[in-house]
Amino acid sequence: MAAWGERLAGVRGVLLDISGVLYDSGEDGGRPIAGSVEAVARLKQSRLKVRFCTNESQKSRGDLVQLLQRLGFDISEGEVTAPAPATCLILKERGLRPHLLIHDGVRSEFDQIDTSNPNCVVIADAGENFSYQNMNKAFQVLMELENPVLFSLGKGRYYKETSGLMLDVGPYVKALEYACGIEAEVVGKPSPEFFKSALHETGVEAHQAIMIGDDIVGDVGGAQRCGMRALQVRTGKFRCQTQKGRGQQPGDTSGPRGKAPTEVCCLRQPSKTEPCRR
Amino acid sequence: MAAWGERLAGVRGVLLDISGVLYDSGEDGGRPIAGSVEAVARLKQSRLKVRFCTNESQKSRGDLVQLLQRLGFDISEGEVTAPAPATCLILKERGLRPHLLIHDGVRSEFDQIDTSNPNCVVIADAGENFSYQNMNKAFQVLMELENPVLFSLGKGRYYKETSGLMLDVGPYVKALEYACGIEAEVVGKPSPEFFKSALHETGVEAHQAIMIGDDIVGDVGGAQRCGMRALQVRTGKFRCQTQKGRGQQPGDTSGPRGKAPTEVCCLRQPSKTEPCRR
Repeated sequence: MAAWGERLAGVRGVLLDISGVLYDSGEDGGRPIAGSVEAVARLKQSRLKVRFCTNESQKSRGDLVQLLQRLGFDISEGEVTAPAPATCLILKERGLRPHLLIHDGVRSEFDQIDTSNPNCVVIADAGENFSYQNMNKAFQVLMELENPVLFSLGKGRYYKETSGLMLDVGPYVKALEYACGIEAEVVGKPSPEFFKSALHETGVEAHQAIMIGDDIVGDVGGAQRCGMRALQVRTGKFRCQTQKGRGQQPGDTSGPRGKAPTEVCCLRQPSKTEPCRR
Repeated sequence: MAAWGERLAGVRGVLLDISGVLYDSGEDGGRPIAGSVEAVARLKQSRLKVRFCTNESQKSRGDLVQLLQRLGFDISEGEVTAPAPATCLILKERGLRPHLLIHDGVRSEFDQIDTSNPNCVVIADAGENFSYQNMNKAFQVLMELENPVLFSLGKGRYYKETSGLMLDVGPYVKALEYACGIEAEVVGKPSPEFFKSALHETGVEAHQAIMIGDDIVGDVGGAQRCGMRALQVRTGKFRCQTQKGRGQQPGDTSGPRGKAPTEVCCLRQPSKTEPCRR
């Protein structure tokens, strides 16, 4: 295995995932992952360009940054690429009026969006708002449209809260895709447009950047497909390969299985696609 | 197009779907579909063997039959093949203890099943019980198992209630499959074992039987794969092909789109797989 120095050669920019990498969210507001406050501080003191690239869709970008600042992180709103603001841009560009199936905490991001007489559906990590009634309403809106359009803010399977693993938006997107026979447009990781937008803000090229995340599909696979290097941490949702289960690979659409340790798992060049080495 | 007499030549047994064919369910108990009470009566007075083959999983078999009797149907519990009793047989055979994500109305079917310390999950059309909390609990149970087993009572996309289209169990199965990276074992249509079990009760061979249903995948496709003939009614969830949308085909996994008329759509020989003719 190549030395760390060799693997990081030429890196000028770092994209950092937030949930599961910097902190674990929770009912109590969540808590920082050990060493992450200091790691961000060191990165920002270095010569590297740093940007935060998150699929967080339960909180507005402002609320998320305030929370992280309270937890001790050196972060500002302008440094964060998040799916809700990106979705609003797309809705405005395409003249679409969404029915929103989202968490109340992110609703303020859509304050300037016309939601009357909806001609598309936007689904995000709605948490407790994923009731049968709300899912059925989104389904009925889609079925009434001649050309149903469904935007998904990320497509993550699950994330880790301080209380345990929690279903993310992805399973609910799959549910609506199956019910309506359609495919959602994903805004957020692993969408290439989303990574490119974050990269653009750092001013570095893909081959000069590294993405650090806990999701082998959304973070590692997505970044690698854009020509970036990627590193998977062993915190957050990361689960090791078990004897009978399967580890997840960057392009894999199946779920990972196992337990969650807390070390760095793998650092990979963009061209390689082997499974994560232990 | 061949005449009806030719298409029905040699038919000795009829399998009838219930929801969307005999009646549309609803908060008020539902209502019979026009002509269906009389059609069942005529079938039962004929020389044909009749069996009811349903994926109903919100009600126990006894409650369903009582409801249909109140609506005027000539039907008894022993004439119905339903997924909950079939699932209980499988659980007992394999010594499995389920975590149940089901509707309260069907819970009595599982009265004799040990649900302590669960080593599998059973998911049915749970309706309002498909809360985020309940879905997350089923997800967590599966993720804790070394070899997660998920049974699904049917895999329908949606059904029609008197108030409109409603999400069925299928979308929620897809959600758990995606979240956990597993594949559910389907008990009910279109599982071949389920059709064979219903056929066995009639005492006729597959090539002598016809399945009548409103679901092109669960009813028509499933029956045809077992060597039966199948007929799709234009009631219940049936929706015609629209100009821009797609009609659903028997083996299709995508969703149908369009409006719901009320005539017979197609009668097909088992070997043919063309789309439904209008």
